[in-house]
Amino acid sequence: MTYNELFRQIQQKQSFLCVGLDTDVKRIPAHILDADDPVFEFNRQIVDATLPFSVAYKPNMAFYEAGGEAGWRSLQKTINYIRQKEPSVLIIADAKRGDIGNTSRLYAETFFEGLNVDAVTLSPYMGKDTVSPFLKYKNRWVILLALTSNSSASDFQYFEGKNGQLLYEKVLQISREWGTCNQLMYVVGATRAEGLAQVRKIVPEHFLLVPGVGAQGGSLEEVARYGMNSHCGLLVNSSRGIIYASSGKNFAKKAAEAAAALQKEMAELLTAHGLIATVQ
Amino acid sequence: MTYNELFRQIQQKQSFLCVGLDTDVKRIPAHILDADDPVFEFNRQIVDATLPFSVAYKPNMAFYEAGGEAGWRSLQKTINYIRQKEPSVLIIADAKRGDIGNTSRLYAETFFEGLNVDAVTLSPYMGKDTVSPFLKYKNRWVILLALTSNSSASDFQYFEGKNGQLLYEKVLQISREWGTCNQLMYVVGATRAEGLAQVRKIVPEHFLLVPGVGAQGGSLEEVARYGMNSHCGLLVNSSRGIIYASSGKNFAKKAAEAAAALQKEMAELLTAHGLIATVQ
Repeated sequence: MTYNELFRQIQQKQSFLCVGLDTDVKRIPAHILDADDPVFEFNRQIVDATLPFSVAYKPNMAFYEAGGEAGWRSLQKTINYIRQKEPSVLIIADAKRGDIGNTSRLYAETFFEGLNVDAVTLSPYMGKDTVSPFLKYKNRWVILLALTSNSSASDFQYFEGKNGQLLYEKVLQISREWGTCNQLMYVVGATRAEGLAQVRKIVPEHFLLVPGVGAQGGSLEEVARYGMNSHCGLLVNSSRGIIYASSGKNFAKKAAEAAAALQKEMAELLTAHGLIATVQ
Repeated sequence: MTYNELFRQIQQKQSFLCVGLDTDVKRIPAHILDADDPVFEFNRQIVDATLPFSVAYKPNMAFYEAGGEAGWRSLQKTINYIRQKEPSVLIIADAKRGDIGNTSRLYAETFFEGLNVDAVTLSPYMGKDTVSPFLKYKNRWVILLALTSNSSASDFQYFEGKNGQLLYEKVLQISREWGTCNQLMYVVGATRAEGLAQVRKIVPEHFLLVPGVGAQGGSLEEVARYGMNSHCGLLVNSSRGIIYASSGKNFAKKAAEAAAALQKEMAELLTAHGLIATVQ
């Protein structure tokens, strides 16, 4: 998927919602546990319920790796299901990998050829060598950690250089040269709205993947105020607030309601920024 | 395994060798490919051949994830095999994970409870939140990326702070407060011997996991000169130089020879530094 195609999806769905599939087998409603593959069955119902309101899904690798080989199988089935159901939705593997050379090339193969996702989150610590093998794939994305939403992000991301530049700013400044807006996005936490404004000074065009709205306390309106650009430029992720909206038999219905509520707010923000004509 | 137990293993085997199990199914000798599980069969023979000469094994996650669920199974079998064969050998999952909160907690569970490895490599970019969940496990280790051996390590690891401190030095200085020498090691590349000396100024006691000897061009003697401490404090990894020493039927024999040659050199260095009595 290209930058422009992603923007068109956002316009069509009037949404820049990414649903985080942090599917924890311990939190799956009891009535699903009888299914052959409860993790997949849960995801399937979540996807069916939320597809009208979301342009992206983000399975979090940790939750599938925790299941070992069965977890890996559930993940692959989930990705195949989303692909078959709606080929134009963006699938992000939240992997935060960061290696080099042959190892990084193998990760790229695993995620882009094996699992067949559109995008992978990566960590910048080892530099360009981590990212390069992923950029060889056309119409696939690297989403690089820049400014994260957790409290200890400040341990190193705010490390101040001689000229006053912070590490996360350096990461943006150096890495934006590695690829185009069609290849690179950045992770920027919603809990740091002032940071979003600063990020936009360095990468005005790029899409930002923004976690931390909802459970982690960020405000969607602030994210749009500081982060939205002429092509929206935002994918806002919500995981627990949607997939665990209810722990009962109505979990899929409640997930749809939670996603719809966010989509409605997003449509209003897209309208206010002149990116869609009217809220339908 | 504790810091002192690891040192005793090193003294007993007169070796600080870590064998990297970067097992690429495309490079497994032809005669092994008929086995039920060629990756496991290859690893089993490598382990049998190299155990007298090595104190640690480091499966590289990328190579197993590339095989999907079958790869995950081969990895688990390999770890179980090493455990059963010699419980006192250190098993390191080279995963370079780096996440936070629930996600990091799940990774810790997966690696320490599921796969049952002793140590995991982690990336420091997101700060202490990445590391904390792993430190709750007794006698397990976090091996944090500090100064890596790849060329683009300089993109960010050498980012210079206001007081002249480099990012990798800041990572060492901050993270050494998070746990003890029984819990934390650091990845320091062998291709940067001058860096090793600097690392030792900040973390004189910790074990360092040193890749980059052999294929990547680092010298074992230089690594010992700048990195060895009173408890050895070094695990030097070799992957391709050992496991692909031959692509023929004699691959295990050649792997043993390559490991033995490194062990011999290590024994001499340990003797020269007064850490073992005599080379046997």
